[in-house]
Amino acid sequence: MKKDTKQEIIETAFKLFHEQGYANVSVRNIADELNISVGNLTYHFKKKEDLIEAVIIDQYENFQVPATPTTISELNDFFLLGVSHQKQEDYFFAHYGELASISPKVYEVQVAAIQKRKQKLQVAFQNLQRNGDMLPEEVPGQINALIDVLNMIKIYWTPNQEAFTNAKESPFDCLWSLIYPRLTAKGKATFQEDIQTRNIA
Amino acid sequence: MKKDTKQEIIETAFKLFHEQGYANVSVRNIADELNISVGNLTYHFKKKEDLIEAVIIDQYENFQVPATPTTISELNDFFLLGVSHQKQEDYFFAHYGELASISPKVYEVQVAAIQKRKQKLQVAFQNLQRNGDMLPEEVPGQINALIDVLNMIKIYWTPNQEAFTNAKESPFDCLWSLIYPRLTAKGKATFQEDIQTRNIA
Repeated sequence: MKKDTKQEIIETAFKLFHEQGYANVSVRNIADELNISVGNLTYHFKKKEDLIEAVIIDQYENFQVPATPTTISELNDFFLLGVSHQKQEDYFFAHYGELASISPKVYEVQVAAIQKRKQKLQVAFQNLQRNGDMLPEEVPGQINALIDVLNMIKIYWTPNQEAFTNAKESPFDCLWSLIYPRLTAKGKATFQEDIQTRNIA
Repeated sequence: MKKDTKQEIIETAFKLFHEQGYANVSVRNIADELNISVGNLTYHFKKKEDLIEAVIIDQYENFQVPATPTTISELNDFFLLGVSHQKQEDYFFAHYGELASISPKVYEVQVAAIQKRKQKLQVAFQNLQRNGDMLPEEVPGQINALIDVLNMIKIYWTPNQEAFTNAKESPFDCLWSLIYPRLTAKGKATFQEDIQTRNIA
């Protein structure tokens, strides 16, 4: 543990929070796991709240933002990445609201991440409309409402799905079910040939 | 406090949990609020977990289940009721996952409520299809996936919306945005004349 103590603390805190939950991990547990003294740890992070903030800021800054989709197939890849991100960090999504209530900073980072994703999806749907894969909006605001729901699924589906659906389904079918009726005949054909076959295979 | 101590305890526990949060309310707080002894309270409910179970079972049993919608307008009423229920009990929705993790019984009641709502919406959409207001499903399973999302919105939208949408929107527009592209021309006309006007007015 020479190079970057601070970064090592963040990574260990991530691992322990993820495995055992924020409430069940003490500053001492993290110091012990790293074989450092509590004093050494609190030199970098005064209290446990600072650690959850640092963990979540670190995740946010290091998250490899996927490219903005320009086709149906790329939109599917975007969703695939989102779902795998979800699974990797499932503790942080399952306790989304709880973690936000510990620190306003955490909440700020959550909001920034969602806003970034929202903008990407807005451009993605403009791209699909330009390609002739998606119908223009009949009622203004509906595509933005759809995007809010897609983000909601990204946050809540995987950790909480058992409470509201009895099937252990992937969120894919669900995401596409919402978009499908907004596709043109060309878009629907592409979806059925390209995405449905691929997801089954 | 003569008639039904048990019921009065449940109602006071509901009120205090709702106002102050489960973690911040002790068995003693509830007894004090009722002017009874802790011993009297624990005669009815041994521990705090029993109280949250009783509160949630009570809400579930006394919830006035709305009729199954047969028209677009009735579906809108169904959503209106859902949203007002959400607001009345917002603490319990904002802490949906946390409360479930306190007691498997709470989780069971949550799942039962969602299942009941799911069945109602399945019949409602069959009714709309029969009326000629909603298109038949092109890809099997999509309407069930839509229903899962409508339930997800019912649970998570109001308490958590600020995290994923910057607008303080009612969930109505959002619910209808998902259903609208599945309506027939007749259904869309009814929606625009009947619902859109009414919700604006």
